[in-house]
Amino acid sequence: MRADTDVLVTHEPGISLITFNRPARRNAFTARGYRQFARALEQAASAPEIAVAVVTGRGAAFSAGVDLKAFDNPAEHAALSAGFDQVLNALVTFPKPLIAAVNGAAVGFGMTMLLHFDLVLANENARFRAPFTELGLVPEAGSSDLLPRALGAQQATWLCLSGDWMEAPDAAKAGLVWRCVAGRVLDDALEVARQVRMKPTIAVQATKQLLTFGRRERIAEALRREHDTMVALVANATPDFERDAGSE
Amino acid sequence: MRADTDVLVTHEPGISLITFNRPARRNAFTARGYRQFARALEQAASAPEIAVAVVTGRGAAFSAGVDLKAFDNPAEHAALSAGFDQVLNALVTFPKPLIAAVNGAAVGFGMTMLLHFDLVLANENARFRAPFTELGLVPEAGSSDLLPRALGAQQATWLCLSGDWMEAPDAAKAGLVWRCVAGRVLDDALEVARQVRMKPTIAVQATKQLLTFGRRERIAEALRREHDTMVALVANATPDFERDAGSE
Amino acid sequence: MRADTDVLVTHEPGISLITFNRPARRNAFTARGYRQFARALEQAASAPEIAVAVVTGRGAAFSAGVDLKAFDNPAEHAALSAGFDQVLNALVTFPKPLIAAVNGAAVGFGMTMLLHFDLVLANENARFRAPFTELGLVPEAGSSDLLPRALGAQQATWLCLSGDWMEAPDAAKAGLVWRCVAGRVLDDALEVARQVRMKPTIAVQATKQLLTFGRRERIAEALRREHDTMVALVANATPDFERDAGSE
Repeated sequence: MRADTDVLVTHEPGISLITFNRPARRNAFTARGYRQFARALEQAASAPEIAVAVVTGRGAAFSAGVDLKAFDNPAEHAALSAGFDQVLNALVTFPKPLIAAVNGAAVGFGMTMLLHFDLVLANENARFRAPFTELGLVPEAGSSDLLPRALGAQQATWLCLSGDWMEAPDAAKAGLVWRCVAGRVLDDALEVARQVRMKPTIAVQATKQLLTFGRRERIAEALRREHDTMVALVANATPDFERDAGSE
Repeated sequence: MRADTDVLVTHEPGISLITFNRPARRNAFTARGYRQFARALEQAASAPEIAVAVVTGRGAAFSAGVDLKAFDNPAEHAALSAGFDQVLNALVTFPKPLIAAVNGAAVGFGMTMLLHFDLVLANENARFRAPFTELGLVPEAGSSDLLPRALGAQQATWLCLSGDWMEAPDAAKAGLVWRCVAGRVLDDALEVARQVRMKPTIAVQATKQLLTFGRRERIAEALRREHDTMVALVANATPDFERDAGSE
Repeated sequence: MRADTDVLVTHEPGISLITFNRPARRNAFTARGYRQFARALEQAASAPEIAVAVVTGRGAAFSAGVDLKAFDNPAEHAALSAGFDQVLNALVTFPKPLIAAVNGAAVGFGMTMLLHFDLVLANENARFRAPFTELGLVPEAGSSDLLPRALGAQQATWLCLSGDWMEAPDAAKAGLVWRCVAGRVLDDALEVARQVRMKPTIAVQATKQLLTFGRRERIAEALRREHDTMVALVANATPDFERDAGSE
């Protein structure tokens, strides 16, 4: 465990705990952060002694999504894009139960990544925001497919169009969050992880595979549509795209 | 704005407000009403200065659906059917956010049309009813596909089989209504519309397109199944079909 | 009506009432019970005077699912498997409204069968459990497809992975149960059945067919995946499979 990394990985028996570690930037992702998160997931996926992974954030926020400052540097764009793809692939193919302990604000990809988790716990102060439209962008990370399924069409539409915050209790009612907890959410998430890791590993992974059947292909298609739309929008709507890039 | 039309259209910047205007018949649709509603939607869809459309009803009801008195006149059937198809096509292809302000009872197509809206607000006294089965009919307007998705299979089944009223607060819990509001629902709906119309238009429409991907084709298939079933039922079950036609 | 059968069938006008009748074994199924339940459904499906079927359990439990004691006898396995297939086929193809009155614990197939019902009523003390993972098994009876649709992905995942009980009020919130009732649930279920059977029969059955379109094929595919997974698991994980077989 190195304190100067963007993503910390620690362990307890059977469980990999992945912690976003840029609290000063509300755990926003640079290309380096994406790569480290992806690698942490890949290692948890392949390590035979790991049965479950738990993901949380250090500090007040869970994650602010991509670090919009990184977009100021055009040379960084390719690395950001590659890092994002690597994370997404690691999330979509993760074969073991993946549990989120949302300790604070989850914005942009900080929110949409949660749609790839099997169980999302959040503390009462956590909140969620999808500021795509106001940036002149559209839903990403497969969320155009996953969000309406998780929240219903109307809630998903409002979250995406408005950019409004959704508070944790509402997110729990809507189905984005599985459990909204009063205390320290990481404690609850680890307790859940310990319960899951006591079950026969092969049956657990086979169950995840059955329950999510078809999702991988559906997400791949959604990602293609989102990408094509984004390319078209950036071509036509550069002013909107840049407008609020610094505000988050 | 002409007071003798079945459907009024008014505007505020960026917003088209479409008001059903046959309060004496609980805003039920004749062929003329269908055509006027379809045209209002088509104009809002193509007018570049319009970003959002809001639909509401004048008087105590939102809409009682098709005017069953119109069915008394066989000569009207073809026009009713053509008008219905025109409205449905306008709803399904509407490219901008479509918001309903349900001010009272929504029955039959008055209810099933809501499944094509992006956001449905209702006041606390609004209520919903799908009296198809008791008329010897089946779900229409794509609702056989959309209703179970919006409400879950069991709630959808009960709504269709029972013909019972569903009150607005229950409809909000079930997912048919996005927001159930205490005051004048049109005020809230317009406020939501104003918030949406401030977002970059291209991104808003691209977001709707992504979030509803596949829906148009699914609805077309559901409409075919509903039509085929209806034809079969009318052939075999004319007595049932006529039985309660006057009661609504 | 014979008191020594595993499944009792009684009637009132238009309604077939099917009652699981092994209260001493918490209405668990042997091959005989499966066959009797399947036959009761088949008869209700084909009897022209029957419009609705209601299923409940005698005693404290609704059903504990398969009788794990039956697995002690390898000679019984083929009959169990055939009986299960017969029940599942009868459930999936049942053409009339199928209503469950869940009077107590519903475990394993006692729970997953409910996903094939059109309306599930439960009393306040009913509870639900899917102890597949802890037995080294995976979701069955099409539940790998139906459970995430009914409950959402996260609730479905937890129910399957944890083996924890879900209480009736939570099951109602989650969408597994349509109505959670205070009194004797069978009274409510019969009242609902009576209301449904007063509607035109052809329209009711056509409505069910439309609302469940595509489900039969989807379930057939899910059953294939579940079966293939189960075969693979039993080959590799026999010790886990046997481990807790006696505990339920």
